[in-house]
Amino acid sequence: MHRVHLRKPDGRSLWLYATTPLPEGLEAPSPNQQPVVPGSHLRWHPLRGEWVAYASHRQHRTFLPPPEWNPLAVTRDPAAPTEVPEGPWQVAVFENLFPTLSPLAPDPPDAIVETRPGRGACEVVVFTQDPGASLGGLPLDQVALIVDVWADRTRELGARDDVEYVFPFENRGVEVGVTLHHPHGQIYAYPFVPPVAARELAEQKAHFERTGRGLLADLLAAELRDEARRVIYSGELALAVVPVCARHPYEVWVAPRRAVPSLPELTHEERVDFARALKTVLMKYDAMWQRPFPYIMALHQAPTDGRVHPEAHVHVEFYPAYRMPGRLKYQAGSESGAGVFTADTLPEDTARALQAVEVSVD
Amino acid sequence: MHRVHLRKPDGRSLWLYATTPLPEGLEAPSPNQQPVVPGSHLRWHPLRGEWVAYASHRQHRTFLPPPEWNPLAVTRDPAAPTEVPEGPWQVAVFENLFPTLSPLAPDPPDAIVETRPGRGACEVVVFTQDPGASLGGLPLDQVALIVDVWADRTRELGARDDVEYVFPFENRGVEVGVTLHHPHGQIYAYPFVPPVAARELAEQKAHFERTGRGLLADLLAAELRDEARRVIYSGELALAVVPVCARHPYEVWVAPRRAVPSLPELTHEERVDFARALKTVLMKYDAMWQRPFPYIMALHQAPTDGRVHPEAHVHVEFYPAYRMPGRLKYQAGSESGAGVFTADTLPEDTARALQAVEVSVD
Repeated sequence: MHRVHLRKPDGRSLWLYATTPLPEGLEAPSPNQQPVVPGSHLRWHPLRGEWVAYASHRQHRTFLPPPEWNPLAVTRDPAAPTEVPEGPWQVAVFENLFPTLSPLAPDPPDAIVETRPGRGACEVVVFTQDPGASLGGLPLDQVALIVDVWADRTRELGARDDVEYVFPFENRGVEVGVTLHHPHGQIYAYPFVPPVAARELAEQKAHFERTGRGLLADLLAAELRDEARRVIYSGELALAVVPVCARHPYEVWVAPRRAVPSLPELTHEERVDFARALKTVLMKYDAMWQRPFPYIMALHQAPTDGRVHPEAHVHVEFYPAYRMPGRLKYQAGSESGAGVFTADTLPEDTARALQAVEVSVD
Repeated sequence: MHRVHLRKPDGRSLWLYATTPLPEGLEAPSPNQQPVVPGSHLRWHPLRGEWVAYASHRQHRTFLPPPEWNPLAVTRDPAAPTEVPEGPWQVAVFENLFPTLSPLAPDPPDAIVETRPGRGACEVVVFTQDPGASLGGLPLDQVALIVDVWADRTRELGARDDVEYVFPFENRGVEVGVTLHHPHGQIYAYPFVPPVAARELAEQKAHFERTGRGLLADLLAAELRDEARRVIYSGELALAVVPVCARHPYEVWVAPRRAVPSLPELTHEERVDFARALKTVLMKYDAMWQRPFPYIMALHQAPTDGRVHPEAHVHVEFYPAYRMPGRLKYQAGSESGAGVFTADTLPEDTARALQAVEVSVD
């Protein structure tokens, strides 16, 4: 993997990645020319015991692009700069123009609950130069490069003092609020371990201390022993499964077979098989109902809080938006107000539907 | 409050409530005539440490009403029975025809994670006989009666051995998945303390043990001391406030001033002022943008797990669907995948907007 780091005129960073060397002389464009002044802060939610992020500067954006404009397309006209330059790069990452978390976040005013600056990072990951592609439709080596990029960002962001957790994710589809359809994901680097990760890590830690084994590795082994009834992809080094305890319809988890805590610790071969598992799931999603399948993709890994996390096992969780064609799954009273997910479909049934979809990855 | 309990032809219960005595001879109709056979079960989610409910019989409903049919309207034609009879009742409660939780749930088959029957209850609360009304638009004494009904159901359901938590809620609007617009809420009675309630109770308990005071009562006192900047309703016995740590845009909490653990322990006067606070918030919501305001309303109170909960403080949390007119707030990667809520608006600003809306409750 090759990488160059560039600085945009407004001070933001841009990283370009490729599998072959990148030329000298690339320049970082920006649709915005003024220095970026983030103003977000965090407030403590005493009843839930968690941080809430306020980025109220996002409502007062100085730069308002026209709705059909694609800031993730390469800059063709220097008079109308986008976020990425022309050139032989394959994946690009840049700091979000309106970040919820930023190393530049100022000290917030006092409040009746604890507050702190919204430090950390919000980055955009441009998956490809092709605005009409999709993550699952990219060639396998491009998906593998994206996994390498996530690992590189995890390493670099995780080394920062103000970052305790690096969270790559993708929101796909208008159904989950996406207005920009050029294939891209995001990375949030939080200055604390977020609640969902903290919860999963606590369960994993208790299991590890009790058994000396990984909780997810044990669950994956049980999935295989259970006639692999819910297994969607079974590679030499990676698996994809509709978990027996799926909270969302057609929820799928992708994980390396080995209990590796985070992306940077995967071997090259593991990353490639992890990419193949991801691509297999995404192709099945899109082929199942013959239409782009909206989802949230969340990558969970070990915190970068300076401690070792032998209990952690890096994995991706896909949360689809639909429960059947044209029928959204809403998170209503029970899910939002009580935290109890209710499913109308059994994981065995959604797994069978996904298993039946034939796709060719290589 | 007066109440009669009736049995539907399919075995389900119906309770009718009114402030004046109800006549003899009321009969409980049902659009369904066959005995109800629920088949839901719970599976343990080892990574999150929580139960997930599967009600796969809901996908295979034998009774499929036409889309425009209103099962919550009173039965006018005995040949087309609905869920509620004619008569002078004001609020009706019945067991859901397709419950996610039911006392009749059978033992589930084994799985690779722990399972248990989906015991508990799912009830529908019909707020009024008027299909065109809304909770906030009802007269104050009707809203107060609904609070009394929630208290009555909490008492009765909470006394059951298979119920550890009684959760009244309302989903309002197509934006949160509601297809039936007759004003109604629901009550889920869980056989465990659900994760959100458990989290809030743990924080409240730690605070109570440290200080001898209620966490929410202390927060409400701090809200009042902070120039009541975010206070929406300040009654003698109840408050409504945009909490300083709001996770949702225009989120509002309604609570009695006194740290009462659950609804049945409120005095009559407290319930009336609680109802007035609810109605004030709801009228402001609908008047603010001159259109029905979609939301999830969640009522949190003490568990019914046989322990005392002096740390609990009953309250309602409203989670609105929109962040501005026509712009839904999505729970995407950060919210769903990491559990970190990000807000574009400050609680002070949404509170000011709600304060500016003048409504007359009495």
